[in-house]
Amino acid sequence: MKPRVKIVEVGPRDGLQNEVKIVPTATKIDLIERLVKAGLKDIEATSFVSPKWVPQMGDHIQVMGGLKQYPGVSYSVLTPNLKGFEAAAQSGAKEVAVFAAASEAFSARNINCSIAESLERFDPVMQSAQRLGIKVRGYVSCVVGCPYEGKVDPERVADVAERLFKMGCYEVSLGDTIGIGTPVDVQKMLESVAKRVPVSALAGHYHDTYGRALMNIYASYQFGVRVFDSSVSGLGGCPYAKGASGNVATEDVVFLMNSLGVDTGVDLEKLADVSAWISTLLHRTPNSKVIGPVLAKRPAEMLSIS
Amino acid sequence: MKPRVKIVEVGPRDGLQNEVKIVPTATKIDLIERLVKAGLKDIEATSFVSPKWVPQMGDHIQVMGGLKQYPGVSYSVLTPNLKGFEAAAQSGAKEVAVFAAASEAFSARNINCSIAESLERFDPVMQSAQRLGIKVRGYVSCVVGCPYEGKVDPERVADVAERLFKMGCYEVSLGDTIGIGTPVDVQKMLESVAKRVPVSALAGHYHDTYGRALMNIYASYQFGVRVFDSSVSGLGGCPYAKGASGNVATEDVVFLMNSLGVDTGVDLEKLADVSAWISTLLHRTPNSKVIGPVLAKRPAEMLSIS
Repeated sequence: MKPRVKIVEVGPRDGLQNEVKIVPTATKIDLIERLVKAGLKDIEATSFVSPKWVPQMGDHIQVMGGLKQYPGVSYSVLTPNLKGFEAAAQSGAKEVAVFAAASEAFSARNINCSIAESLERFDPVMQSAQRLGIKVRGYVSCVVGCPYEGKVDPERVADVAERLFKMGCYEVSLGDTIGIGTPVDVQKMLESVAKRVPVSALAGHYHDTYGRALMNIYASYQFGVRVFDSSVSGLGGCPYAKGASGNVATEDVVFLMNSLGVDTGVDLEKLADVSAWISTLLHRTPNSKVIGPVLAKRPAEMLSIS
Repeated sequence: MKPRVKIVEVGPRDGLQNEVKIVPTATKIDLIERLVKAGLKDIEATSFVSPKWVPQMGDHIQVMGGLKQYPGVSYSVLTPNLKGFEAAAQSGAKEVAVFAAASEAFSARNINCSIAESLERFDPVMQSAQRLGIKVRGYVSCVVGCPYEGKVDPERVADVAERLFKMGCYEVSLGDTIGIGTPVDVQKMLESVAKRVPVSALAGHYHDTYGRALMNIYASYQFGVRVFDSSVSGLGGCPYAKGASGNVATEDVVFLMNSLGVDTGVDLEKLADVSAWISTLLHRTPNSKVIGPVLAKRPAEMLSIS
């Protein structure tokens, strides 16, 4: 049997969140539907943050209400606090995600509190989630470097990851938010984290700012990580360097896995169609290497990529 | 002492060759001069092919005549046959490059002869080069996959690399022409080749068509390869998939090496300036991940990249 990885598609939330122009709710639902049809089973659908902070996600209730349910498909939603969690639960969410940073400076600037405070804030969320049978995923940002602090100590990443795991997160996604990590950095970070959290509960969330996302995914795969976050068409930029890439494109990850003989359950050609469709709608050049050759099927057909 | 890699800058030849509009000779010379000032010491300057085949390289004599000589800087030129070699030698070239493919179908379509015939054609070139004290570099294309044949057997790559080395090439550059290789493929290929050619005489020339160039460079570095070919600004597209990337950007390679603590001798900020300059002149978006953040110095200054 082929080895398998799980891909968590974050385009509809982490990707669209950076779009300045409000994307119509129907388009968001359509995007998620198309992603499901391309084979993605884990999709971050929206965020239950205040519309004052993130207007793009102001239609979270409508998005949740419009999603068709399919067996085996999980839509998760980001919830920054208990209020957001309760609204998400009311809208029918079966999975939520909470986020913390491994850098104090990033935590202060991004979520306006210390790392310890952000974790305390999740306590009631975790308890409520447990009562309601809602799964919780944890994010850790700045796992290699921080735009304000520089290098981040792997032990600090392990501290936060361990806390999230012990609080009840079934999976902890490790984010190289500024995409600065090399495979050497990522491996060191994973070694620290894996001493405290089982590697089977870890996910890699690597940004492609400097073209290193795929190499860090591969390094993590070699280490034993089997879950990776990515965004169709590379939706979502890097807020720390204008014009630079953020999320790695799901199609690039899928094609790499195909070439490595690893199953993702995703149909690359269907996914490339979704990528082309959403990019056109958003008047955006796809942040993907693979999409052009795949759509042109050159030299794809020769190496039977899909 | 820091470990060191040699970067062979192929932009002025392999990169510009794909530009449809003829680039003025003065611009080519200016580009090479700027690359030298950024710290590049091995630059493929032009090609002594017939202007009928490659009009862009029709000014090879003028380019060679206009280059300033610096201690430690080597300008190599591509020579497809004895006629090209003799013209290159007359123009003062101290280093030339010859090229063969590891795939028969590619050899037939690209250089119009079998692999064996292409290698025989280099015999008089090698003999003449030896007499004149001119260094010869050998290229092997399609070292992982071929756009016409599909997967390429590593033993066929080793056959061609060994022939070139035994003929007198001081260095053999292994090209993943269609950028399809994974680190697994590249490592297998290197294992085969390194049984017949010392790894110190090998170079990696990986295209970034599917975003895998940096990971293949890293895999090759781990294997012991210390020479990599790249092109400023990622100049040069992929002729097998329109709009797709070809050469990996030199600035992306330099920044990766900086982050790995490996010395390239190149000043990243100066190089980014050259990349921005040539891209603007050619009305081209840089095919580079690093250039935006480096020029904006965000979050570069935090992690002291250069």
